[in-house]
Amino acid sequence: MGFLDALSPRAIVASVLVLSSLAYDVAARPSPEPKADWVRKGPARKKMSNHIKRAIEGQSDTRRTEEVPCADVLAKPITAPKPNIWGQLTGEEISSVVDWLFAQEQFNLTVTEEAGPWDNTIQLVEAMWPNKTDALAFIDGDAPAPTKYAHVLLNNRATENPFYADILVGPLPLDNTTVSWEPLTFPYNKPSGDGKVRNLDADEDIVYEEWIWKISASVTDITLDLWNGTALGLENDTLDIWGIDPLWQDDGRIIRWDGFWALSGDVFDAETLLPLGLYFVSDITGRDPSKWSLEGWLYNGTFYATTEEFREAYWSSFFKKNGPNVPGAWSATDHNGDVPPLDYNHPPTIVAPAGARYGVDHEQKYVEWMDFSFYIGFNRDTGMTLYDIRYKGQRILYELGLQEALAHYAGNDPLNSGIAYLDTFYGFGPYAFELVQGYDCPTHATYLNSSFYVSETTHTHINSICLFEFISDFPIQRHTTNRYTSVTKNTYFVVRFVSTVGNYDYSFSYSFFLDGTISVEVRASGYIQSAYFAGNEEYGYRIHDNLSGSMHDHVLNFKADFDILGTNNSVELVTMAPTTVTYPWSKGKARNTMHLERSFVESEDEGRFNWAPNQATQVIVVNEDVRNKHGEFRGYRVLPSTGTVHLTVLNSSNLANAGRWAEYDIQITKYKDTEPKAAHPYNSQDVHDPPIDFSKFFDGDSLRKEDLVLWLNLGMHHLPHTGDLPNTVMTTAHAGVHFMPSNYFEGDESRKTVNQVRINYSDGKTSEVQTFGQKTKAEDYNGTCKLVFEPVKADLWGYTGDIVVRKFPYDPNNPWFQTGSIV
Amino acid sequence: MGFLDALSPRAIVASVLVLSSLAYDVAARPSPEPKADWVRKGPARKKMSNHIKRAIEGQSDTRRTEEVPCADVLAKPITAPKPNIWGQLTGEEISSVVDWLFAQEQFNLTVTEEAGPWDNTIQLVEAMWPNKTDALAFIDGDAPAPTKYAHVLLNNRATENPFYADILVGPLPLDNTTVSWEPLTFPYNKPSGDGKVRNLDADEDIVYEEWIWKISASVTDITLDLWNGTALGLENDTLDIWGIDPLWQDDGRIIRWDGFWALSGDVFDAETLLPLGLYFVSDITGRDPSKWSLEGWLYNGTFYATTEEFREAYWSSFFKKNGPNVPGAWSATDHNGDVPPLDYNHPPTIVAPAGARYGVDHEQKYVEWMDFSFYIGFNRDTGMTLYDIRYKGQRILYELGLQEALAHYAGNDPLNSGIAYLDTFYGFGPYAFELVQGYDCPTHATYLNSSFYVSETTHTHINSICLFEFISDFPIQRHTTNRYTSVTKNTYFVVRFVSTVGNYDYSFSYSFFLDGTISVEVRASGYIQSAYFAGNEEYGYRIHDNLSGSMHDHVLNFKADFDILGTNNSVELVTMAPTTVTYPWSKGKARNTMHLERSFVESEDEGRFNWAPNQATQVIVVNEDVRNKHGEFRGYRVLPSTGTVHLTVLNSSNLANAGRWAEYDIQITKYKDTEPKAAHPYNSQDVHDPPIDFSKFFDGDSLRKEDLVLWLNLGMHHLPHTGDLPNTVMTTAHAGVHFMPSNYFEGDESRKTVNQVRINYSDGKTSEVQTFGQKTKAEDYNGTCKLVFEPVKADLWGYTGDIVVRKFPYDPNNPWFQTGSIV
Repeated sequence: MGFLDALSPRAIVASVLVLSSLAYDVAARPSPEPKADWVRKGPARKKMSNHIKRAIEGQSDTRRTEEVPCADVLAKPITAPKPNIWGQLTGEEISSVVDWLFAQEQFNLTVTEEAGPWDNTIQLVEAMWPNKTDALAFIDGDAPAPTKYAHVLLNNRATENPFYADILVGPLPLDNTTVSWEPLTFPYNKPSGDGKVRNLDADEDIVYEEWIWKISASVTDITLDLWNGTALGLENDTLDIWGIDPLWQDDGRIIRWDGFWALSGDVFDAETLLPLGLYFVSDITGRDPSKWSLEGWLYNGTFYATTEEFREAYWSSFFKKNGPNVPGAWSATDHNGDVPPLDYNHPPTIVAPAGARYGVDHEQKYVEWMDFSFYIGFNRDTGMTLYDIRYKGQRILYELGLQEALAHYAGNDPLNSGIAYLDTFYGFGPYAFELVQGYDCPTHATYLNSSFYVSETTHTHINSICLFEFISDFPIQRHTTNRYTSVTKNTYFVVRFVSTVGNYDYSFSYSFFLDGTISVEVRASGYIQSAYFAGNEEYGYRIHDNLSGSMHDHVLNFKADFDILGTNNSVELVTMAPTTVTYPWSKGKARNTMHLERSFVESEDEGRFNWAPNQATQVIVVNEDVRNKHGEFRGYRVLPSTGTVHLTVLNSSNLANAGRWAEYDIQITKYKDTEPKAAHPYNSQDVHDPPIDFSKFFDGDSLRKEDLVLWLNLGMHHLPHTGDLPNTVMTTAHAGVHFMPSNYFEGDESRKTVNQVRINYSDGKTSEVQTFGQKTKAEDYNGTCKLVFEPVKADLWGYTGDIVVRKFPYDPNNPWFQTGSIV
Repeated sequence: MGFLDALSPRAIVASVLVLSSLAYDVAARPSPEPKADWVRKGPARKKMSNHIKRAIEGQSDTRRTEEVPCADVLAKPITAPKPNIWGQLTGEEISSVVDWLFAQEQFNLTVTEEAGPWDNTIQLVEAMWPNKTDALAFIDGDAPAPTKYAHVLLNNRATENPFYADILVGPLPLDNTTVSWEPLTFPYNKPSGDGKVRNLDADEDIVYEEWIWKISASVTDITLDLWNGTALGLENDTLDIWGIDPLWQDDGRIIRWDGFWALSGDVFDAETLLPLGLYFVSDITGRDPSKWSLEGWLYNGTFYATTEEFREAYWSSFFKKNGPNVPGAWSATDHNGDVPPLDYNHPPTIVAPAGARYGVDHEQKYVEWMDFSFYIGFNRDTGMTLYDIRYKGQRILYELGLQEALAHYAGNDPLNSGIAYLDTFYGFGPYAFELVQGYDCPTHATYLNSSFYVSETTHTHINSICLFEFISDFPIQRHTTNRYTSVTKNTYFVVRFVSTVGNYDYSFSYSFFLDGTISVEVRASGYIQSAYFAGNEEYGYRIHDNLSGSMHDHVLNFKADFDILGTNNSVELVTMAPTTVTYPWSKGKARNTMHLERSFVESEDEGRFNWAPNQATQVIVVNEDVRNKHGEFRGYRVLPSTGTVHLTVLNSSNLANAGRWAEYDIQITKYKDTEPKAAHPYNSQDVHDPPIDFSKFFDGDSLRKEDLVLWLNLGMHHLPHTGDLPNTVMTTAHAGVHFMPSNYFEGDESRKTVNQVRINYSDGKTSEVQTFGQKTKAEDYNGTCKLVFEPVKADLWGYTGDIVVRKFPYDPNNPWFQTGSIV
């Protein structure tokens, strides 16, 4: 079968019918819709090309030169040693691919704004990631840059069996004589091997228009009585309806459970705090709504097989009605309550008095801080990824980035029980919004833009990645004696993006430290998704009037492709274990003590495991062929910090094979070009037979002296309590891991910084204050660049939103602004 | 038997003999000597009463008023609601107690400076902690303050069986008609019940003068040949000798293993990096050196029963000699290596532009920040402890502080195998040195002094506790939608002290967050104690020429005496567990999901346990009698952050019963006035029968609706690698725990801060920037107090060291400065 099925006459009719009412919405959102209602509202568009150009070209740094007279305040402009081969496609490249695709009759494509549910559309055009084998030949050798291809995702809905197809188009730049396409299959391990996955979402709009709203309309007597509201798909609806994700996919049927939610009514995005406790189940197998069936209702733990049965029970005298969840100050994030003493005063703030101490190649998204360097990549599915992370020119990690984020709920109701969001379905790239200067990152940070493709446009999120230096509240080193004190500042460097996938805001930070340590941190805020309280005691605390804080697991998988002094690496396990030993000197007595037990992870058969009890076992990526001069393997240790958890649920009914990566804390594979990613964004569309079943990666390959990839899970078992209202707080919703040198350097690398002091004293007097040439006074800067302690001013009125550029037809000179939304 | 044995004639002779050579040293150090050599060197003294008075009275804040014109920069002066009943004794009180003690013939006391090893001396005079039962009546009710007593420790060495005696003297202020003393026995559970513990350290000086140096002198041929050095107890020694702690105490014998170390020779305190690999064992049972015996030598894994045997082997042709460890740049903490790009420039720094936003009652050491308040206590054994920690006036913790810190080593040599430091033996108070402004804490911090008693003097460590507000590099809350973004700054408050117990610097930080969370953090830096490399492969990495990074466990016990809405508390365990359930709505299908399992820790029989695998179980201190309005127990959750470990060694031969508190992660007891502390500082003196055997606390008391104490272990399995040279870095040598509200408040308390922003937008324009009345501009401060972004200047030349005041005879007007040292 080719890419296209013939359009059935019914399909064409349906398509036209739907178009008139839905065209705007379709155009306004990417077809995987996140769970929050606001994404369904079409954003307004306004042409503002005047002030846009500056924002696109200038990055935020241009703003700063106007305010601070010293050029050093800006990140030092540097030139990447090689072009960024993990970068995004240019506007011209995307446009040429889109043009070419529309010109190929075989694809039978329709422009998204004009497409109905029975039309084929372009879902995504972005850069195809290079294979590591090709990339290394380029970045480490003299080989040319890997040939560039566009990764295209086609949403083929002009068929009874709609599907997504990953294809490659190229090489880029397109040349009519060489351009071709092929299915993208090698990174996926679905047995069909054709780069396709079914699309359960093809009729999402019809499901709402032809099914959900009509069912809701059939019970307005009840919704009005219970909540004085209706959900009819109208602008003035006060209720909303949505349900499980993934859909039930057992026994060849596609089943959805939906529930009623109150719309928040005010500016606040509190809908996920407002469940109403009424659910219904539909069998929506196939594309013919006439064959869909409503299979029943659930309220207060009682299942009713038909609407009639439900209505009869409802209006009977013995029916127990529960209250609604009503928004209010409790669900609003604004200031609320008595202002604590002195809180109106300006709190402590971080300033960079000598300006940026790092270099950025804005064009190549290449960064240098102290002895570290790395490239930044960005894509739709997972947002920002770091590549070729080096220290003093020696690579430590080839790739470090998010793979997938799971939020797996449980509950006594089918909605919470049935939800296990795999968030790359929605994508982290499209939701990586502009960062708020002085709040999300310091005002002195350097901000970079990121962009993503949707509906024949590219959207640019301005200032959505930040880079900054910070200082911790504690030193990195200190020692005091009766003769001297030595202390060193703990200055570190952070690169961050935040992605708000519907209700939750995930903050991803990669930090670099003076001792050579790298950390990965995830923090969560935003609105929890809650459950209706009735009967949910076993699945959550009751946290408000009729509300249960629905228990859920967050598990986030990170790929850490270490290259320790080359690609031939091993993972050594070093355990501190109790033992009883009789020593030559112990007078024949057995002594209870401890010792080291050292071993290697031999093969992928041993490659999936959890952190040891009592943190007894160190996991260290080493190069067995490179010992330091004392004979120890040079390596980097993977040191769990906090929140290194795996999924509680065993063999989840929701996920089946779609989230096998969540099953262990640490998973190690031999690198293969065919296993570049732990998850496919559309794994949720076919959970029993997903494009990528991660567990299949473990097929017995040796892990000794091989190119290794560590797939590490961070996360949190989240049992929301009242303190999660209105939003979860990042102080405790936190997971992290450190990669720390282990016998990698000759000594502590932080000794190289001059930002330390040694104070000598004797006889009750300080005799020396040694600051190693630090430039701490304005005079030290030769008058060319003074220390400026005033913080860089953040203009929060400049929080302008997305810049959108049409790609088909390509119209680069008429970009427009669009605020806040992904679309 | 009373407190005093008759002085034997021999004892008197010995005392006089030793006095002439040792008096200076004895006066210059507290008798529990820490392991680092520098403490043995007597510090110089210099009278500097001129500039001292200012330092004692003014605290560091006076310095700041001179520099910044706005009075608000200082911590707001406040008055504690009640006097601090956990504070230290006044100089007058201490002096009166010392006077009284010397006047009591029965104690037969000698002034420390004049005392020999057969004299009784006063080891410690400090405030006796009040019993909680008495304290609560005062702080929560109308009862008078608990009667004040002095806790005195007598070092009774005028006896064949020297011992320490804890006694109480009082009530204070002393009144000749009412003053009395009694043995302090109730907090200890040693069967003898007399408040005494033997002193294995009584002859420490004689052991060196009459034993160690003489043995070393007997092998100078060998030490000169091996290392071109000698250890003879002379000023020009290039070698040092010290050994195990605790001493071996089996079978009624007292055995010590000692090893040779190189002195570092330069300013740096690197001796613990310079082991030389030669060890000898002595039986020093009893006080008569003529009955002590040298029991053998160990070198390179071979044991020699006599010096002759060792010498014969050494000078034979087949003896294998290993190299020394030699100090150098690798063991120096100074700047070393190529300065990274831009590192000379001033790094980012934190400033407090509106001054301090907290209040301090300097005299009572009472602190208020936002809605938190607490008192600071300080004592010799454990340094700083926080008391009566409240939020909006409601107590959360009665007491929060360190109990004991264990550093348990292992090795193939008897020295490392035999060391399990219990650091309160040395004391955290005496080693809580002055903090370096701008390095240990921000320059804008408020600094407090602490003091301790030694040898009839009180020493004051200036600026040894710091209090400051900081801002993290991430917000506490954020959420973005297509209509608005809301973000809140994560400002937090820290109180910190750092104690350098010999080679290691422990930094203790208690932090307070806007959401009501409290954290406890320990970080370690300083010099590791290492091992000689020969044959030590099973116990450490080889990290330098002839050096092994000796594996060791740090376990630090903290007492967290929670009072959640009163003292009748329970500990609820809430586990997220996998389960398989068939629901009324699941069409008869069993679903693999998860649920909550809730239970209580019923009694002390269940009171000792570890963190669950996969962090599955929440540990929450709740008040079962106080449900919130949704029916949930109000409580605080104990949330492990990182480094929550217990001791690897099972039933340690070194510790026997002296460190039972280190055996589990979490240990919960019913509060008893008789169980105020997990450890006695002299537990190491009698490990089989220590003053406090923590395991005896667990005697079956109910833990439901009782006053509960949680004894929590933080720590680190430390396997030093090259990155620990010269010093361990605090980035990864870190342990912490959070206490977070769990259904304690109605919602997130951080909503009360105005330091948040909501930005509204639509149509590509920002329509509102709501900052809730924050005073961000100079004009907001009415001209009386401008925002000052210049950091407070730290005068590092003012790092002046201890202030010492003689207490016997009391001489408060002639204090002197003494730098850096504990003494």
